[in-house]
Amino acid sequence: MSDAIRVVGIDPGLQRTGYGCVELDPKGWTPTLVEAGVLRLKAGTSVAHRLRQLELDLVEVLEELCPSAVAVESVFSHQQNLRTAILMAHARGVVLLCGQRRGLELVELSPATVKKAMTGQGNASKRQMQLAVAAEFGLDRPPEPPDVADAIAVALAGARRLANR
Amino acid sequence: MSDAIRVVGIDPGLQRTGYGCVELDPKGWTPTLVEAGVLRLKAGTSVAHRLRQLELDLVEVLEELCPSAVAVESVFSHQQNLRTAILMAHARGVVLLCGQRRGLELVELSPATVKKAMTGQGNASKRQMQLAVAAEFGLDRPPEPPDVADAIAVALAGARRLANR
Repeated sequence: MSDAIRVVGIDPGLQRTGYGCVELDPKGWTPTLVEAGVLRLKAGTSVAHRLRQLELDLVEVLEELCPSAVAVESVFSHQQNLRTAILMAHARGVVLLCGQRRGLELVELSPATVKKAMTGQGNASKRQMQLAVAAEFGLDRPPEPPDVADAIAVALAGARRLANR
Repeated sequence: MSDAIRVVGIDPGLQRTGYGCVELDPKGWTPTLVEAGVLRLKAGTSVAHRLRQLELDLVEVLEELCPSAVAVESVFSHQQNLRTAILMAHARGVVLLCGQRRGLELVELSPATVKKAMTGQGNASKRQMQLAVAAEFGLDRPPEPPDVADAIAVALAGARRLANR
């Protein structure tokens, strides 16, 4: 019998970085939401300062949750504007670095794959994603802010990908 | 009398990251090239793996050279394509993080400012930059690869900005 699969999904950003930890029970692969939250980076501080804060917060989250893998969305989506994409990529670099330092496996999924897995639609809105995550895990209300729902969704999709291989 | 100003300039990339360390003597602000080189990241390995390698290499470089500031080019240049810009931003995030962890000041300069300071032209070619760097520091030959010349140029421009304030 295989072990449970525990994945931390991360939705990186320089204002807020959402994270969600999902575990799949090896018996039937039922998903459990272990923990989720948002790392808020101090507005008005430099990018370098916020990256350092993000690193410290992520080290703590990964230390506490002890996942076997980290899941993130792949980049190069066409909808992004260049400025947003570049700032996000700075934060994404720190996320990949923190995972690699712990020797964690990395699962990358396209935004459309994550949305489709969660809602059945590759172009689901943020609100649809929040409602689908709440329904999937039987939450009283949709996770807020949307970054948290996105992080939980990418964790679940990542965990399922690992279970299916 | 003020102290010498020592700046490490970095030209981040996921294949090669150039670095150059320039010191300005407080008496007349004559520039000296302390050291320069290129950190080569292993082709064919994952982005996460290369970011980790970059972190390890940068920690060593900064530890050895003990600068008071790090200088990098600002991003959001219009010439870049999205994919290249996003990959570079992952590496740039790690550079900013490593500087911030050591409490180093960060100097950001536009690519045009750096080129103009070095060659008199804001749109200088890579070759012109290499030749100008070689002339400025009396090198036998142009620094290779061009990433090294760019890193030296941004270090010099960054050091001069700090000297002039």
